[in-house]
Amino acid sequence: MGWGAFIMIGKINHIAIVVPDIERSARKYHDVLGAKISSPIKLAEHGVRVIFVDLENSKIELMEPLGTDSPIAKFLQKNPLGGMHHICFEVKNIKEVILHLQKEGAGIIGDGEPKIGAHGLPVIFLYPKDFDGVLIELEEVRD
Amino acid sequence: MGWGAFIMIGKINHIAIVVPDIERSARKYHDVLGAKISSPIKLAEHGVRVIFVDLENSKIELMEPLGTDSPIAKFLQKNPLGGMHHICFEVKNIKEVILHLQKEGAGIIGDGEPKIGAHGLPVIFLYPKDFDGVLIELEEVRD
Repeated sequence: MGWGAFIMIGKINHIAIVVPDIERSARKYHDVLGAKISSPIKLAEHGVRVIFVDLENSKIELMEPLGTDSPIAKFLQKNPLGGMHHICFEVKNIKEVILHLQKEGAGIIGDGEPKIGAHGLPVIFLYPKDFDGVLIELEEVRD
Repeated sequence: MGWGAFIMIGKINHIAIVVPDIERSARKYHDVLGAKISSPIKLAEHGVRVIFVDLENSKIELMEPLGTDSPIAKFLQKNPLGGMHHICFEVKNIKEVILHLQKEGAGIIGDGEPKIGAHGLPVIFLYPKDFDGVLIELEEVRD
């Protein structure tokens, strides 16, 4: 793996914020903070609706639960105003990353296999207890 | 102000994560995630010690309380593992930004005047209740 000089995580792909109402939140980012926002996107297979706030160097993903089985419904029950949900870092080769994580004893949520994430790319999530209470997503992004 | 075509917030300058022990957390970002980390920096006047995780497009600021009056001591009591504390966006002219925020009825924490932040630049903080439970810092960065 050439570990040492090798930098594993690249860019911050996005910061995900769970909110009760993506349109209302996006309007604030647009009107109050003067940010560029996307149209709403429905991701039925992930149980969320999202709007992106496009910033110069990265983006914020505003997420709202879709359907009763939404994986973020509980988060919103615990945090009715909303809150920061996860940070997503880009990696180049998720299979190599997983091997390294296993070697370091870092836990991967689920069965350790990458899933297809909300952007159609392979992703894994790491346990918040291993990273200061912060949920980290790693997404494979090829050049 | 030329509002409309004008984009107010630019880059995500950093995401701040409060942790009990910055050295231990930084070691994980380095060893497990292969990220570049800075040396620890003591910011006595802000009641914190910090280590930066330098990513390709932005950075993470790991913060640990310094002294009994640290403004982040309470956050850590409520979140003993740590957690995401705020997002900092860059702006060009903080005085114009403040005028716009006042016009939009957005609250600024404190007396509405910019303070000198941890990086020696003028900053303001916005109320989390206005932004989905997320604490937002705006930092003036000149080209």
